[in-house]
Amino acid sequence: MTDTAPRPTLEAVAARAGVSRATVSRVVNGGDGVRDILVERVRKAVEELGYVPNQAARSLVTRRHDAIAVVVAEPETRVFADPFFALQLRGISKELTAHDNQLVLLLTEGRDDHARVGRYLAGGHVDGALVFSLHLDDPLPELIQRAGVPTVFGGRPGWSGDRHGVAYVDSDNRGGARDAVRHLVGLGRTRIAHITGALDQTSAVDRLDGYRDVMVDADRRLIAEADFTPAGGERAMRELLDRCPDVDAVFAANDLTAAGALRVLRESGRRVPDDVAVIGFDDMLPVAEQTDPPLTTVRQDIEEMGRLMARLLLRGPDQGTRREGVGGTSSSVVLPTTLVRRASA
Amino acid sequence: MTDTAPRPTLEAVAARAGVSRATVSRVVNGGDGVRDILVERVRKAVEELGYVPNQAARSLVTRRHDAIAVVVAEPETRVFADPFFALQLRGISKELTAHDNQLVLLLTEGRDDHARVGRYLAGGHVDGALVFSLHLDDPLPELIQRAGVPTVFGGRPGWSGDRHGVAYVDSDNRGGARDAVRHLVGLGRTRIAHITGALDQTSAVDRLDGYRDVMVDADRRLIAEADFTPAGGERAMRELLDRCPDVDAVFAANDLTAAGALRVLRESGRRVPDDVAVIGFDDMLPVAEQTDPPLTTVRQDIEEMGRLMARLLLRGPDQGTRREGVGGTSSSVVLPTTLVRRASA
Repeated sequence: MTDTAPRPTLEAVAARAGVSRATVSRVVNGGDGVRDILVERVRKAVEELGYVPNQAARSLVTRRHDAIAVVVAEPETRVFADPFFALQLRGISKELTAHDNQLVLLLTEGRDDHARVGRYLAGGHVDGALVFSLHLDDPLPELIQRAGVPTVFGGRPGWSGDRHGVAYVDSDNRGGARDAVRHLVGLGRTRIAHITGALDQTSAVDRLDGYRDVMVDADRRLIAEADFTPAGGERAMRELLDRCPDVDAVFAANDLTAAGALRVLRESGRRVPDDVAVIGFDDMLPVAEQTDPPLTTVRQDIEEMGRLMARLLLRGPDQGTRREGVGGTSSSVVLPTTLVRRASA
Repeated sequence: MTDTAPRPTLEAVAARAGVSRATVSRVVNGGDGVRDILVERVRKAVEELGYVPNQAARSLVTRRHDAIAVVVAEPETRVFADPFFALQLRGISKELTAHDNQLVLLLTEGRDDHARVGRYLAGGHVDGALVFSLHLDDPLPELIQRAGVPTVFGGRPGWSGDRHGVAYVDSDNRGGARDAVRHLVGLGRTRIAHITGALDQTSAVDRLDGYRDVMVDADRRLIAEADFTPAGGERAMRELLDRCPDVDAVFAANDLTAAGALRVLRESGRRVPDDVAVIGFDDMLPVAEQTDPPLTTVRQDIEEMGRLMARLLLRGPDQGTRREGVGGTSSSVVLPTTLVRRASA
């Protein structure tokens, strides 16, 4: 531990400025009713002494911290392994920094730690929370609700029941999935498979729904469940080749999954796109460009989603609807997606 | 923003438990002097109502938050691009979680934001701070000192002046560098170059000193400056080939730098290790195993360093000396390194 110099007190500032303790307190807390000349003297003393007001005490009065918590509902190992989170955090960080707000990332080892995250949020340390990668049955939304901090979710939260005013930023997952599958149909493919994401997340459910919108009455064996990871994509692709050797196209729930599927297809001697066409989701760079062959995918602007989440939280609900977007409730935004064609389909 | 249910108050808990407000307050703040039967009734009411005490208020009394801040003195883009930080955070996260402490990662866009980090640390939101990747002239140590929070540094802080009691966890960078260069000498190499890390960091300076310990009177043109990144390693290797075409070995300040150097050597038609032997530092997996050829390197246990930082902070200074280690001041730990031989030297 550092051997710290004593922290300058309010009293020291008052003595230096030649004013009362109450005057210093009023100036520090931005209150009115202090003459300009005294405000100036207090400010000078604060600066000279390097006085930092006790924010825990001050926040009881002002209830502002200029800090926003970010909670990724995944173990920290996944937060650092999946570039999706780094991109979303990049957008959030830029926006918060532009408004001189501190980004407070609350990392956990897993869901068992979410109660502790709830306690921190409830503890008066932040002005709001940005929460993403929620899974069904996660206690977080309940804990956050109880903590009473303003919150914006990344991705439509999946809990049941109607809660008006829940703000979120999402991509048009269902529409994007439909575009991908329609493109495969347009290429003349008939045995089009889908490798899902983690189906306890709304993004995965929405993309599956988009697939089903186009592939009405699809052979159920053409749907293989995975979890948004490359390893999951490999496993699912092996299952599909086993169950349906005549598969001629795959729509994977994200680029990492598609990358895993491509590896298994190559091992099995299938040519992409000649034998099997493959489409991903995200347009995560450099992943999507460096697969072999480069990946056709559904682009969503992940960094922009992060920026919008932060903006929505800082502005408050009234400003939420002024964004371009294809839909969303009063204080939410749903961004459009675009199909990006490369070599794999 | 979420439309939140009203947060249960202290008064509501008191009413439910049939006790006074003061009694609830005493129980919640862990105070003594309350009969067991009343403690039980209050606890039950707290649980039933989902009451969360206002920690901002409570912390004024108890001064405990069960939260530890982590500050990486790099822009968030580097935090997510360099696996070194993920590994160190992994160790910290495991240790803090084991003690039910919340890891609060304070991300920034760069040094301009460090004053804001200082304000957050001073604001009574955490019980201590773990700080790593410090650069010389960074205002952070001064700001942290002023904030008055107990701190452990990752890597020996480089500021001048004698500050007793500064706690840090470091690797034996100088000894590890000596081992690497001696190994190259043992291989019969005579034109041994060094690609440095960022020389405003003590780890880079110490590794350079270790190189100089062995290569007394080394040709100064054999030292090229870089910054711990692959791009820096590429640039420095080009400079070295240009200045000293007879170079027959390279000790790079870390594995990422070595990976960059290997790429340039391959492009220039040099065989590794036949023409030029290469050694890195870190033993960062999978980087060190996946270079071509696999990298001989100086291993430091990065995850363990993170764990030790957290342990030192949670235990306090008195416990610091009980660790194994090759040196360090009263409350610091310096861990030994090991040379790991693979194909590159």
